[in-house]
Amino acid sequence: MDKNKLGGHYLEKYNEELETLRNRVLAMGGLVEAQVTDAVNALVSADVRLADQVIKNDARVNSLEVIIDEQCAEILARHQPAASDLRFIISIVKTITDLERIGDQAEKVARMAVHLAEKDRPKNQYADIQSLGERVARLVHEALDAFARMDVEVALSVAREDANVDREYESVMRQHITYMMEDPRTITRALDVIWALRALERIGDHARNMCEYVIYLVKGKDVRHVSLEEMERAARGETPGAE
Amino acid sequence: MDKNKLGGHYLEKYNEELETLRNRVLAMGGLVEAQVTDAVNALVSADVRLADQVIKNDARVNSLEVIIDEQCAEILARHQPAASDLRFIISIVKTITDLERIGDQAEKVARMAVHLAEKDRPKNQYADIQSLGERVARLVHEALDAFARMDVEVALSVAREDANVDREYESVMRQHITYMMEDPRTITRALDVIWALRALERIGDHARNMCEYVIYLVKGKDVRHVSLEEMERAARGETPGAE
Repeated sequence: MDKNKLGGHYLEKYNEELETLRNRVLAMGGLVEAQVTDAVNALVSADVRLADQVIKNDARVNSLEVIIDEQCAEILARHQPAASDLRFIISIVKTITDLERIGDQAEKVARMAVHLAEKDRPKNQYADIQSLGERVARLVHEALDAFARMDVEVALSVAREDANVDREYESVMRQHITYMMEDPRTITRALDVIWALRALERIGDHARNMCEYVIYLVKGKDVRHVSLEEMERAARGETPGAE
Repeated sequence: MDKNKLGGHYLEKYNEELETLRNRVLAMGGLVEAQVTDAVNALVSADVRLADQVIKNDARVNSLEVIIDEQCAEILARHQPAASDLRFIISIVKTITDLERIGDQAEKVARMAVHLAEKDRPKNQYADIQSLGERVARLVHEALDAFARMDVEVALSVAREDANVDREYESVMRQHITYMMEDPRTITRALDVIWALRALERIGDHARNMCEYVIYLVKGKDVRHVSLEEMERAARGETPGAE
């Protein structure tokens, strides 16, 4: 690797910068994960103050994306990293786009929480949203874990679990559509619930995207747009992709 | 710029590669724009065959994203481009993510077209979807135009028009919710319409994202997550961002 050609001091500084970059992504991820959890809790417990805080915090998520993007550009310009580090940085540019969009979805859930706080609550007290919300927050947590440890097995388990989340989403969604048809007076509430559910489902998709970049990084194989089975084969295969 | 230091033959090859990259992005954009137009036409004219074709074509959009990403990584590794070219390549990595997601949304509209083809048609014959659809297809076209010509004014006009699209979306959406409440038998159809409208609205957002990268490229200023007014100030300002 090119790094061996570099002087010790320069190399040290370079590695430090990569480490700072990695830590910033994890910090952004931690904030985004908290946003998801807080947004779901705000909705389930009709906590408008917490919802407002999530909405306000989204600006912090956005500015972290901008800062990390700039840092990536700087490292590319200054150090001209070779193959594997280059792949790492491109993956980060993609990862933070997904993190930022998870943040947007959390903000949407928080906005629905504000709407719903004024309305009658359903008999199940939003237990279905709580359940789906906890599952996707865990997906975000595990996607970050896969990134932090470059762990292909964790990445694969997130992709598998995202498929389960999609199924739970479909089933809960059908239920709410049935409620709506049975009692049209609940339509406006049901639509807010549907938007929140949809946002949670999309958070799962973004967590899966993040895991696809981890597999790309570790195995050199692009597993976007492939089935779960193909993804497992690619991640477990002995032959890494062509460099 | 570093390029001056390079030999003529090498420089020629490098410029060719950048030009190929740029053309591929435009080709991907052209395909995505056609997908949006076809999906909307399929829905409005209940053309299931056209809808199926859009759904099938999405795989082509996806594979273009993967190919262009790889080409970006190759150019970064081989030529280690300096500041402005580096920014160009990072913008492309982001742009194609948005193009791919516009493709996903077009596919969603096509899926709704398949559902809706079996159902009674509303009195307005989906004139509202046609109108919104034509507007967002034009936004995608203009965003690509802004990218092709690195035109900040066109980029700004897309951002402004996206704000109008959002308003039209809100108004059409409210109308469909009213229909649903007036006649609950139309709920399942209305929900398909709502998903299609939502997908169109998101296409506008992605077109706006693409224009933000153009402004970033030309002006060196990151205008994501800022208001339209701030964006205009940044794009028109005489002082480009610090390098």
